[in-house]
Amino acid sequence: MGFIERRKKVFEWMHQEGIDLVMFEDCEARRDQAVRYLCGQPGDALLFLSAGEKTLLMPWDIYMAQRHAKVDMLLEYSMYQLNPIKACIEAARLLEISPTGKIEIPACTSYPDFLKYVDTKSDYDFICRESGAAKLIETMRSIKDDDEIKLYRELSELTNHLIVFLEKAVSDGNLKTEDDVAIFIEKTCRRLGCEGTGFTTLAAGSDRSFGIHAFPPYTNGSFADKGLSILDFGIVLNGYTSDVTMTFTRGVLSKKQTEQLDLVKEAFDIAFSKSAEGVSCMKIAAAVDAFFKKHKVFMPHGLGHGIGLQAHEAPYLRNREQCDTPLETGMIFTIEPGLYDPVCGGCRLENDILLTENGAEVLTKSKIVML
Amino acid sequence: MGFIERRKKVFEWMHQEGIDLVMFEDCEARRDQAVRYLCGQPGDALLFLSAGEKTLLMPWDIYMAQRHAKVDMLLEYSMYQLNPIKACIEAARLLEISPTGKIEIPACTSYPDFLKYVDTKSDYDFICRESGAAKLIETMRSIKDDDEIKLYRELSELTNHLIVFLEKAVSDGNLKTEDDVAIFIEKTCRRLGCEGTGFTTLAAGSDRSFGIHAFPPYTNGSFADKGLSILDFGIVLNGYTSDVTMTFTRGVLSKKQTEQLDLVKEAFDIAFSKSAEGVSCMKIAAAVDAFFKKHKVFMPHGLGHGIGLQAHEAPYLRNREQCDTPLETGMIFTIEPGLYDPVCGGCRLENDILLTENGAEVLTKSKIVML
Repeated sequence: MGFIERRKKVFEWMHQEGIDLVMFEDCEARRDQAVRYLCGQPGDALLFLSAGEKTLLMPWDIYMAQRHAKVDMLLEYSMYQLNPIKACIEAARLLEISPTGKIEIPACTSYPDFLKYVDTKSDYDFICRESGAAKLIETMRSIKDDDEIKLYRELSELTNHLIVFLEKAVSDGNLKTEDDVAIFIEKTCRRLGCEGTGFTTLAAGSDRSFGIHAFPPYTNGSFADKGLSILDFGIVLNGYTSDVTMTFTRGVLSKKQTEQLDLVKEAFDIAFSKSAEGVSCMKIAAAVDAFFKKHKVFMPHGLGHGIGLQAHEAPYLRNREQCDTPLETGMIFTIEPGLYDPVCGGCRLENDILLTENGAEVLTKSKIVML
Repeated sequence: MGFIERRKKVFEWMHQEGIDLVMFEDCEARRDQAVRYLCGQPGDALLFLSAGEKTLLMPWDIYMAQRHAKVDMLLEYSMYQLNPIKACIEAARLLEISPTGKIEIPACTSYPDFLKYVDTKSDYDFICRESGAAKLIETMRSIKDDDEIKLYRELSELTNHLIVFLEKAVSDGNLKTEDDVAIFIEKTCRRLGCEGTGFTTLAAGSDRSFGIHAFPPYTNGSFADKGLSILDFGIVLNGYTSDVTMTFTRGVLSKKQTEQLDLVKEAFDIAFSKSAEGVSCMKIAAAVDAFFKKHKVFMPHGLGHGIGLQAHEAPYLRNREQCDTPLETGMIFTIEPGLYDPVCGGCRLENDILLTENGAEVLTKSKIVML
């Protein structure tokens, strides 16, 4: 599905909802990949869609936008001093929105900024809600189309290529430190044709793997020494990221460490076996939480999340009411159970799952590597 | 100045303003280094300060917080399902805020979330404004104390060490591609004791330097080939980042390219010569814009910005009314004029400046390297 088809869906929704103008904002403080999803512009821009089915992009960098964005109109954002409120009013004028038209601004607009929109003293009806355009795009993005699925199959192959290499290189002692591993990924993914990594690689040697997300993300300390080490990374192809976590163990493990690994592996299998069309994301996460509780351990994070143009997007596999939504064919998401202990260290196993008409499929081959 | 002294300033301000509880939020969608600034916790947490001079931290990762955060009380955020509204109400109860107390929530709270706070049907008076606690912390952070200045002197030495190495290694042909350069920085900064880089390094070879911020940030394409190449990077020591940009040129340059370089160098000198206690940030930026305009060129971005726990913070050196604030002793900021052309490529020169009682001082030694 190309930008035109995606925008057509948005225009149809606008007609149904009686919205005259929708605004999306991707800026340093609030990244929103909806802009790239709808027109190809990779960052720092405002995107407007009008009920008259026109698209207007206001990028920070006009030369970049000329190369990346597919839109009807392009105007430098700096003409409006990078002020989203000024820019929005001007976009409404340029796109001939009726003076009393309904303008939907981003759901993450701050309360003080919302007041500034209202204070412009225009007669526009500014709408700021989570259930509107933001939700529409979130839902559209959560179900990948054929082209996106094809891309994810290719991306998963590249990710698996890296996984195999990493297992071998760490086993052979060719990657000894956290930064050896992280930098190997940075270098190799670009050689494989990727844009880069989808988030800062987390490489935590056994003295730091107790943290869910190690801080700093990686150091020049040793990796895959005695005990449990965690490596969480993703690589990006045409904007879309994979997201996997390997755990490396070395030496004789304590009873508790072995139990941790076994429970995490079993939790992964439980979650995967339940992943099917129509099953509630909350219920899958709840099943894993209950399994861990039965074994007197606790997972301090969600079970998984959708992946796409952002590393974390819908669907969210968490044991919370808001996540009581069904899995659907075309969704691509992670399953990533993990257990962490300040003495034993941590263990997480994360793979990317695609839900097809024939059931759930594990796209990536991340695993617990025992050295 | 330690966390205690910083918090004392916040408590004093709260008493003056009649605020009973202030909340800071650092989460994936909205990073706020105020949390680290006030208690040492490096990420993913809510921080509450009460008029009773107590501090409560609710981190996502409790083990991480136990190692980093200096607070009176520590509670797992997941107890409140990572729901900031629930967590805030509970914090108010635990910190014994009066049932009609004034609670200041983050200025970037979205309008839909603000409505949820109000909908809790508590009698708390929720305050969400840009002029309150957010502004206080922004101002405090913009003026570095003696310890921060000492740290910046050390950080600048490390940054300069890298600059010298980079000049030599690129000149000698030992770093040939964008990723060679970027990865060299990742590797070396950690060897020098840094946490990592302050933002994704931007390394743009001559075919991509037309972009203000190249996309992707770096590739495996060649760097410092014939023409103009840009390298923008920063390294982080104890949370604080430097931010410099070098331009590399190679071969015989066109008249226009030479003019671009000369204008950028002159713009830097103009800005530096005007940087003094009491001078308006807007006016410095305006002087550079006017200089460029006189020469019929246009800089598509701001002149500079404060650096600290974030790569972009106050003061902002931009030609906009909101930036009509005076420079003060203790401020550390960048000056980074740049010119970009789709044919000639781009050129930016960025260094970090400290304003002392004796005037402005250039801390870093970034430059235009002509090969």
